[in-house]
Amino acid sequence: MFDKVGIVGVGLIGGSIALSLKKKNLAKHILGYDKNEINLDKAMNLGIIDEKSNLNGVSNADFVVVSTPVSVISNYVIDILSLNRKTVVVDVGSVKKSIVDKVLRYFGESVNYIPMHPIAGTENFGPDAAFNSLFEGAYCIVTPYSGISESLLSFGRKFAESLGMTVKVMSPDLHDEVFGYVSHLPHVIAYTLVHLVSNKSEEFRFVGGGFRDYTRVSASSENMWSDIFLKNKDNVLKAISEYVNQLNEFADLIKCENKDQLVEYLKQARIFKRILDG
Amino acid sequence: MFDKVGIVGVGLIGGSIALSLKKKNLAKHILGYDKNEINLDKAMNLGIIDEKSNLNGVSNADFVVVSTPVSVISNYVIDILSLNRKTVVVDVGSVKKSIVDKVLRYFGESVNYIPMHPIAGTENFGPDAAFNSLFEGAYCIVTPYSGISESLLSFGRKFAESLGMTVKVMSPDLHDEVFGYVSHLPHVIAYTLVHLVSNKSEEFRFVGGGFRDYTRVSASSENMWSDIFLKNKDNVLKAISEYVNQLNEFADLIKCENKDQLVEYLKQARIFKRILDG
Repeated sequence: MFDKVGIVGVGLIGGSIALSLKKKNLAKHILGYDKNEINLDKAMNLGIIDEKSNLNGVSNADFVVVSTPVSVISNYVIDILSLNRKTVVVDVGSVKKSIVDKVLRYFGESVNYIPMHPIAGTENFGPDAAFNSLFEGAYCIVTPYSGISESLLSFGRKFAESLGMTVKVMSPDLHDEVFGYVSHLPHVIAYTLVHLVSNKSEEFRFVGGGFRDYTRVSASSENMWSDIFLKNKDNVLKAISEYVNQLNEFADLIKCENKDQLVEYLKQARIFKRILDG
Repeated sequence: MFDKVGIVGVGLIGGSIALSLKKKNLAKHILGYDKNEINLDKAMNLGIIDEKSNLNGVSNADFVVVSTPVSVISNYVIDILSLNRKTVVVDVGSVKKSIVDKVLRYFGESVNYIPMHPIAGTENFGPDAAFNSLFEGAYCIVTPYSGISESLLSFGRKFAESLGMTVKVMSPDLHDEVFGYVSHLPHVIAYTLVHLVSNKSEEFRFVGGGFRDYTRVSASSENMWSDIFLKNKDNVLKAISEYVNQLNEFADLIKCENKDQLVEYLKQARIFKRILDG
């Protein structure tokens, strides 16, 4: 598929994209760049990339994936496309609207840029965490801007599908709202729940039962997630606020000791959970 | 170990205790009783119990396990011990203090009663969900009351260990407080998170990523959990209230856009999570 691919940010996501492209023989040569030189060396030693490069180098690839923390994605996309308007740049960040807006403000609509968000990951991070089947069976949300060309969009779709993903299309706005609730809020829940328990005595350090599930993602990268919370600030704050209201309403159900209402609330959740699971 | 064991409540927990005792050849004959006749028939047909019985019948066993929803546990314990003061009754409910208090108010301290809480379960329920390895490797919290005899306590410990569990001892009070935070609150979180998303449009029904982990337990039995929330009302309300404060403080960190503080908060959680996991 590609002669030369550039990967900017060779962590869990960028590294796994490189390894997946290699496994599927979709890239002849992979150039990597990472601000963190230790990680770049690791990616080279692990065989994730074929060559350590810089922004100039990766901008000469046919295709560049930007997979850094979201706070710096738009800068990298702009730098690379400024160096070479002919390459195609894909950004795979977990927040879309602010990045898309910034890139479009810079270039206008006629730019070889495709924003997407592969819904895949683990709580581990860095090049060591990368693996070549991370995207198999996952969804990938492609978030086109008005004015994106059909051919560019179809290219982005094919790229995601070639990694084993099913593509869903959403506007950047809707993407950020939806993932504010179904991904960023659950991460807020994990982090705050761990903090709540960390303030308690040793007896509370009891991770039996469901607690482990709830706190798994609190082992994620603080650099990645602080960026996501700040870049999707309005949606995350709205989700937290609505969630606090839900918790307070639920506390009221317990306070009133109205068992029938409580049973009904829990039953509705059980039934809706079945719908969610398909 | 036992000639005759009685199981009151032949669902996931009671059924799994019966199957575990059978697998380990610890019970010659298992009598079952359940208010729900369909479940009692199921337990018989699945080979979980050897005989369908009633309260009179099970009270003649050497050893009786009460594994019903927590709202009715104390009544069953009292009824069985009133019929036969010589049998030993174990209650395996997820809430301890109110049950222990009620049984002790009735009998005083000199009673063959052992309260415990096996930290094991799945989101499935009913006799069909029972299996013979549910307790292997789990913790069991034994919650002695003042005045419980050493021999009774040691008997309870041996019973839990014989099912493959590691015993921890806590007062009923502390148990209810700890599990209010580390088990009941996570269930509140799951139920309320599912409700929050169920009020949104179809686009929000996106269970990729961590969302599935967070909502798994919302498939649990509403009868069991409404009872737990009500029986442990004060602790659950305190946990929800402190948790809401944590969420509001976290929202403030995002509002201020103080990235360093936010990174530090997330990092602390990641490090504490590692301590929790051991």
